[in-house]
Amino acid sequence: MSVLVVGTVAFDSIETPSGSAERILGGSASYFALGASYFAPVRMVGVIGQDFPQDYLDLFTQRGIDIAGIKREAGDTFHWRGRYHEDINQRDTIELHLNVLAGFQPKLPEAYRDSEYVFLGNIDPVIQMDVVEQMRHMKLLALDTMDYWIGASLDTLKKVLQRVEMLVLNDSEARLLSGYDNIVKAARAILRMGPKMVLIKRGEYGVLQFSDSSVFATPAYPLEEVFDPTGAGDSFAGGLMGQLARTGDLTQGSLRRAIVYGSVVASFTVEDFGVKRLAALSLPEIEERYQRFVELTDFHS
Amino acid sequence: MSVLVVGTVAFDSIETPSGSAERILGGSASYFALGASYFAPVRMVGVIGQDFPQDYLDLFTQRGIDIAGIKREAGDTFHWRGRYHEDINQRDTIELHLNVLAGFQPKLPEAYRDSEYVFLGNIDPVIQMDVVEQMRHMKLLALDTMDYWIGASLDTLKKVLQRVEMLVLNDSEARLLSGYDNIVKAARAILRMGPKMVLIKRGEYGVLQFSDSSVFATPAYPLEEVFDPTGAGDSFAGGLMGQLARTGDLTQGSLRRAIVYGSVVASFTVEDFGVKRLAALSLPEIEERYQRFVELTDFHS
Repeated sequence: MSVLVVGTVAFDSIETPSGSAERILGGSASYFALGASYFAPVRMVGVIGQDFPQDYLDLFTQRGIDIAGIKREAGDTFHWRGRYHEDINQRDTIELHLNVLAGFQPKLPEAYRDSEYVFLGNIDPVIQMDVVEQMRHMKLLALDTMDYWIGASLDTLKKVLQRVEMLVLNDSEARLLSGYDNIVKAARAILRMGPKMVLIKRGEYGVLQFSDSSVFATPAYPLEEVFDPTGAGDSFAGGLMGQLARTGDLTQGSLRRAIVYGSVVASFTVEDFGVKRLAALSLPEIEERYQRFVELTDFHS
Repeated sequence: MSVLVVGTVAFDSIETPSGSAERILGGSASYFALGASYFAPVRMVGVIGQDFPQDYLDLFTQRGIDIAGIKREAGDTFHWRGRYHEDINQRDTIELHLNVLAGFQPKLPEAYRDSEYVFLGNIDPVIQMDVVEQMRHMKLLALDTMDYWIGASLDTLKKVLQRVEMLVLNDSEARLLSGYDNIVKAARAILRMGPKMVLIKRGEYGVLQFSDSSVFATPAYPLEEVFDPTGAGDSFAGGLMGQLARTGDLTQGSLRRAIVYGSVVASFTVEDFGVKRLAALSLPEIEERYQRFVELTDFHS
């Protein structure tokens, strides 16, 4: 079953304590699509400018990703420049040029409207809602957002949340959205806004999943080197949604395993700059690290 | 098999966002002993002043703890006053009166010297070494320390570390002791200093355990209310060492289960001020939350 992602396709310019990179492939849709591509067919919706190189598009198609939903517009591609601190969990945005993203109005290819697994990357909630209206019979709708939209478009965001099964966000965003410092209280408050499930990403500390009937906690895969955390969250969501589409199983056990697959994919992403490691993976590599994750967390043997 | 703890017995005066308490029972040996007491016989070594109330001593003996090693000296009991921030993971020390602790020179009762499970709470490494010299045939020696001793007594601390099987410390202390920001690198560096095992406490994010041949990661039990984090780490160590003494099993699987038992005990500790909740537990309550911890982390069902 296909996974549809709507999000940004971008140039990222990144500085981390380990080095720097200029105008490399980035964006939530890119990281998500590559992460999901190891598990299921992926369809991408996004916008690029005249300056976006064919090489980057080839990278998607080589991974079997359907890019019929990526539209090239007059102007330049969305460009983000960021700098990570010595404490790699913190970063500053140095430059942000929306460019063609400013006029992004996704019109889904007809075939895409039947996609059952849908991920709305971190974009304007107005666009997210517009996409929801275009879908016909989703099995799972997941959504990411960020502090900016929580501040600037809370009302629209709350409307979208009423349509969503799964909200994926990080801990500081969960605190901001709910008004609670305690993360359990924050998750419970967000569940009352509509989503049946809240996934809280805690970076190197792992993931918490909340629903009305269940709580799941898992650590992150410990790494000796984190080169570049960019895209960890989106490739996590890609691995998660891809694995769910691969199995078609939305029971609690399956959801938990998918969260672990997502964590495994994210652990590869941060091992090199941009999508370098993520785009060059193989399913056996992912399965092998999944097995190491099982060993890492097992206390029953 | 008995568990021996050497550490502080104190008055704590605490302010948290949830309230405050004056001169309540505190200290590393107190929290450790109470946590361990649900699993195994416990022997306590520490020093108290003339002002230390009989009620607090009774609290230990009611839990079956052997307090023959607690010596009453002329002067006042060690007193710590601290204030937690809105972000409960941060605290400031407002007052610190060593009082009788300044002259603490533990002389172990003869029977204590055969204890097989020994925990050296966070005290001067000189005292920790002195205790090590008094022991006859330990099966497991574990040690806690803190940033102050890493700064002030690094050489002595390093000597003690060469005698220790298990070092228990929090993530910022691991970074300080090793000089590495990355926690995996930090743990590897500390293993090279002598301990066969390093346990890194990450508060609400759980625990990482490192040895040469194994890494174990577990989240913490998610709580809706954290009233007072004081003693979480020491009661964690108490539950851990108590469970190991209960089973007498030091295989990797048993160590991992003991870490989960420790996490469960700590999750109770922080639910009320001081030792209030910790001292009023029962083994069935602990076993029940252990089972909920199994469900919380399971992704195989």
